[in-house]
Amino acid sequence: MGLLKDFDQRNRAALGEELHRFARELYPICRSITGNGLRRTLTMIQNRVPLQTTEVPSGTQVFDWKVPKEWNIRDAFIRSANGKRVVDFQKCNLYVMNYSVPVHSIMPLNELKTHLFSIPEKPDCIPYRTSYYKEDWGFCLSHSQLQALEDGEYEVCIDSTLENRSLTYGECYLPGQTTDEVLISCHACHPSLANDNLSGLTVATHLAEFLAGRDLRYSYRFVFIPGTIGAIAWLARNIEAAQRIRHGLVLTCIGDKGRFHYKKSRRGNTEIDRAVMHVLTHQTDAPEFLEFSPYGYDERQYCSPGFNLPVGCLMRSVWGTFPEYHTSADNLEFIHADKLAESLRVCAAVLDVLEDNHRYCNLNPHCEPQLGKRGLYRPTGGGTIEEELNARLWVLNLSDGDHSLLDIADRSKIAFPMIRDAAELLHQSGLLSVVSESVADGKSSPEAAAPSVAVARRSQS
Amino acid sequence: MGLLKDFDQRNRAALGEELHRFARELYPICRSITGNGLRRTLTMIQNRVPLQTTEVPSGTQVFDWKVPKEWNIRDAFIRSANGKRVVDFQKCNLYVMNYSVPVHSIMPLNELKTHLFSIPEKPDCIPYRTSYYKEDWGFCLSHSQLQALEDGEYEVCIDSTLENRSLTYGECYLPGQTTDEVLISCHACHPSLANDNLSGLTVATHLAEFLAGRDLRYSYRFVFIPGTIGAIAWLARNIEAAQRIRHGLVLTCIGDKGRFHYKKSRRGNTEIDRAVMHVLTHQTDAPEFLEFSPYGYDERQYCSPGFNLPVGCLMRSVWGTFPEYHTSADNLEFIHADKLAESLRVCAAVLDVLEDNHRYCNLNPHCEPQLGKRGLYRPTGGGTIEEELNARLWVLNLSDGDHSLLDIADRSKIAFPMIRDAAELLHQSGLLSVVSESVADGKSSPEAAAPSVAVARRSQS
Amino acid sequence: MGLLKDFDQRNRAALGEELHRFARELYPICRSITGNGLRRTLTMIQNRVPLQTTEVPSGTQVFDWKVPKEWNIRDAFIRSANGKRVVDFQKCNLYVMNYSVPVHSIMPLNELKTHLFSIPEKPDCIPYRTSYYKEDWGFCLSHSQLQALEDGEYEVCIDSTLENRSLTYGECYLPGQTTDEVLISCHACHPSLANDNLSGLTVATHLAEFLAGRDLRYSYRFVFIPGTIGAIAWLARNIEAAQRIRHGLVLTCIGDKGRFHYKKSRRGNTEIDRAVMHVLTHQTDAPEFLEFSPYGYDERQYCSPGFNLPVGCLMRSVWGTFPEYHTSADNLEFIHADKLAESLRVCAAVLDVLEDNHRYCNLNPHCEPQLGKRGLYRPTGGGTIEEELNARLWVLNLSDGDHSLLDIADRSKIAFPMIRDAAELLHQSGLLSVVSESVADGKSSPEAAAPSVAVARRSQS
Repeated sequence: MGLLKDFDQRNRAALGEELHRFARELYPICRSITGNGLRRTLTMIQNRVPLQTTEVPSGTQVFDWKVPKEWNIRDAFIRSANGKRVVDFQKCNLYVMNYSVPVHSIMPLNELKTHLFSIPEKPDCIPYRTSYYKEDWGFCLSHSQLQALEDGEYEVCIDSTLENRSLTYGECYLPGQTTDEVLISCHACHPSLANDNLSGLTVATHLAEFLAGRDLRYSYRFVFIPGTIGAIAWLARNIEAAQRIRHGLVLTCIGDKGRFHYKKSRRGNTEIDRAVMHVLTHQTDAPEFLEFSPYGYDERQYCSPGFNLPVGCLMRSVWGTFPEYHTSADNLEFIHADKLAESLRVCAAVLDVLEDNHRYCNLNPHCEPQLGKRGLYRPTGGGTIEEELNARLWVLNLSDGDHSLLDIADRSKIAFPMIRDAAELLHQSGLLSVVSESVADGKSSPEAAAPSVAVARRSQS
Repeated sequence: MGLLKDFDQRNRAALGEELHRFARELYPICRSITGNGLRRTLTMIQNRVPLQTTEVPSGTQVFDWKVPKEWNIRDAFIRSANGKRVVDFQKCNLYVMNYSVPVHSIMPLNELKTHLFSIPEKPDCIPYRTSYYKEDWGFCLSHSQLQALEDGEYEVCIDSTLENRSLTYGECYLPGQTTDEVLISCHACHPSLANDNLSGLTVATHLAEFLAGRDLRYSYRFVFIPGTIGAIAWLARNIEAAQRIRHGLVLTCIGDKGRFHYKKSRRGNTEIDRAVMHVLTHQTDAPEFLEFSPYGYDERQYCSPGFNLPVGCLMRSVWGTFPEYHTSADNLEFIHADKLAESLRVCAAVLDVLEDNHRYCNLNPHCEPQLGKRGLYRPTGGGTIEEELNARLWVLNLSDGDHSLLDIADRSKIAFPMIRDAAELLHQSGLLSVVSESVADGKSSPEAAAPSVAVARRSQS
Repeated sequence: MGLLKDFDQRNRAALGEELHRFARELYPICRSITGNGLRRTLTMIQNRVPLQTTEVPSGTQVFDWKVPKEWNIRDAFIRSANGKRVVDFQKCNLYVMNYSVPVHSIMPLNELKTHLFSIPEKPDCIPYRTSYYKEDWGFCLSHSQLQALEDGEYEVCIDSTLENRSLTYGECYLPGQTTDEVLISCHACHPSLANDNLSGLTVATHLAEFLAGRDLRYSYRFVFIPGTIGAIAWLARNIEAAQRIRHGLVLTCIGDKGRFHYKKSRRGNTEIDRAVMHVLTHQTDAPEFLEFSPYGYDERQYCSPGFNLPVGCLMRSVWGTFPEYHTSADNLEFIHADKLAESLRVCAAVLDVLEDNHRYCNLNPHCEPQLGKRGLYRPTGGGTIEEELNARLWVLNLSDGDHSLLDIADRSKIAFPMIRDAAELLHQSGLLSVVSESVADGKSSPEAAAPSVAVARRSQS
């Protein structure tokens, strides 16, 4: 037991370097919501953790959506009259608007400009643009590049294909003692952007590596999916599995220097919400907690009313709010080894709570048991007590079958590991019994029930 | 639909002038809780909206009260020895204590003074005084007038009558699609006082004019009544109608320059409370919300425990707290055309919420529906989204049959009209169905139930 | 009726002197958790109030504990080589570690020092130390005394006995109209320490004196017990009586100059919690309310999960937080006659609330009753109203059978006595009926139910 204690035996600096190295390996690949870049990314994850990949054919109906054609790209450039590639996909895959249809043509600057995107306020950054569901082509470039273009004719070429093939996603499933699942989800569709979302991919991959082979309470499902359409496709094909999700996290933008932000699930007070907020409060500086809103990453889909799953989103800086977001400045320098490692540790600490968040019953509920005769008190009376003993008193006092260890940790304002250790010691001393899981499930009805079915039924009637 | 949108097509300045003109017409009349001044006031309202008047005979038992004798007054004065009217009812009806019994006598200043009322701290204001239930007579005058009175004999005359006739009130009933009612109540018993309550009378009259002839969800009942005894008489004669009141507002002191204040209903969190607070928060500067208290205007009666109706009180400056209150300084200069018009607009905005506060069901509850293929999204991905689209996502996410549009507006912090427009657009696009009203009523049990009956039974057993 | 009103007819200064005098009488006695000092203390209380004492034999099993041997002490000293008693129990009973086993020996200073306790940061204070459950001996002395000891041989003598006899506690039971009980508990085991807890003993004794012979709603049980083991022994022998406890207070540290602190019961919102917080808010300066925690005085036992009684702890300065705590500086100068009297008054005010906290039904629930015709209103209309009338309106408005007078006092922010007086006046005027207690009990289920049984059953299953 004690995932976090185990985690803390590792060399954190080395771990951070390893995380960053994996991000560097993934960085150059031109990913999209379909295609070979995505496949290559999944293969690299598969080299580290057991990953099952699924191909969903183009045109497949997934709820209200259709899986789009598969996009692949070999090359793209804008060539000036003097034969020089002034914009070159080989140098940076952000130059091409993602999902651009193929084009090969010569046109004057004026006409070309209707296909060029830049950010005048950030003249040195290449923006990241997509056009998944409207057939179009375009180039993204820094505003200074754009302004340097001289009048004249330009050869434009996008050597891409859009074909009826398939959309790919990967799942790493780690079976546990129960079939109740913890979902870790991250989008794998962004090209050379580091914080959004190589940070999520590397942390999730290493978290899966860390968990693999352990004897765990929950089963864990890591999904590496293209954003939006991938989550929709996964949910459409896994309606039953979705019912087994007890807790879930979307991981994104967790490699930068920002403090932690947690966006709560739609329900707002589920066990995952409380676990993350507890961990961030006790283990990080000045975290911020955001109420659920229906715009964002794939929590949008998991928290749609028909599912209403207990899934929140863990971030450092919030997507859309930092200047590097969705530009070439979200690069490998923007994410940091130590920050990635700290994010991974936070994830381990959250799972540490979920795994051990049991309910106990005090077997001597009338008055305090005599801790002293068991060597669990201090020898001489009077004065204040240390936090360890305090944790024991809290656990004894609130172990009435109604309060989980997280409830006790929150009410006592003592960090979860100290409460859990106290409970284990008291349990070993014969002072507590574990409340059986099924009873606990019945009690924690807000989390343990499967409200999505009920909601779905009502909203479709 | 869209009462507010309709309202905003009017010329606001012209409307303000019209409101103030009506207040000016009503100002000179000497009103009381019974009598011809009250009748004349109701006739002037009747010239604008369909008004049914009721006469309740003096002596009628209404709950714990008896309707008092009818009071009328022709003239009143204090004449000094030199024959000059030093206090003259013809110049200002506040000079006479309302409900004074007739008197005609000559008396020395010392004796007269026991019947004179002034406010030493506001030496230029005539106070407003009444003595409805204790037979007495008196004059109110400014403190400077009082101090100017020289010793000597004075002729005092109050040419009033107190007779067994009746108490009058008026009702404007606008039938809607359902018999569920919205109550708008204002007291019509104050003589020449502008903010308290010609402001309420003019705004309510124009609100009724604005609603008349429309196809509305709710039936609307405007009651123009003498304060306290009128509300009690109306309730005593309309116990069944009172059960149909789903939402209600008392309007008073809404013509001055003060910011808005809303005093919540006894229940404190009913739909009218939430609608008014939502509208004031989004549409006015720094509104204040007051908890219910049992002293005040006729919400006292509507919120008595036997009725416990969802009725709050909308004000600008709060009665009793501004220096002009219940003095001759609460005159036509104290209320303003633009403030009256803004208050009317707030009322329209509140009704706009009530009329359209439906519940919807997302017909694609699993994951987001694809808005793009319906032209309801933006073409190019990435970055933040505008509030209109955000409103659509909120409506889709929370339309699970449990959340009303006002719930969604409050949770999203988006103004109701934008949420409503989003819902209508999504409904037209086939993405939402309306939850039938009866179901909605069953759900909103705190508001829709008829708790007053139950309470009454229990408290009388 | 009106405990507080009655209390306030006494001479407060004289009462304070009496309280302090009693503390002075009790001060010199060497108390412990068993023994003759405790017995003598109970006898002195018995001289003032009817007190039944109980002897629980050593070795008796009380829940998870065993009653320890009885400790008595005749003399103790440390004598230096020159024959002088450098530490002398006859001068101050704190010099001996409480429950020290007998010793008579000669030893060098080095060896002796392992049995000496002082507080270097408070060099003039003798600390208070106990060793109840580990057989040991020791002396406590001021740090300056300790430093003045010269090298050499010392004669140490503790002339104490530890025998199989009994543990003593006292109960003062005042029967009331119902068998529902109010518990007042204070620990009587500390030797010469004034605030902790002669303050509690004197206030509780005088409170019992004040209540004795009155016709009261509740039965009152005052328990004077050794801390921890005494509370456990009492509970173990009174499981049924404990089920009858509706409200309870532990009194400690209530004689010093600090502002009041109230530590809430484990349930946190019971009637005793609300009554104490109401009284302290209205009647004292800047009180502080502390959440329940499982460390502290005997509320630990009363609030153990198997009992979970509505028992809070009333203090001025909080034990453990003031520098004099558990040292010889917690002496008779540290507590004050006027502070003891004020604490006693707060207790009377709390009981005043509990005794009169009834529910009423407004017999005219529809609209306000006409107070004027009963002489309960003011004669002339308009303007604001005085608090007395306001209290009547609040009582009428909220007397629907659901709200207790304390509910009304809290919601109206009016002090309880004024609300109670209004209710009694309205009741005498025939406007209210009393809701029968059994109904009230059924309603106030959080307090009135006997949850400890249920909890106990669940937690032992």
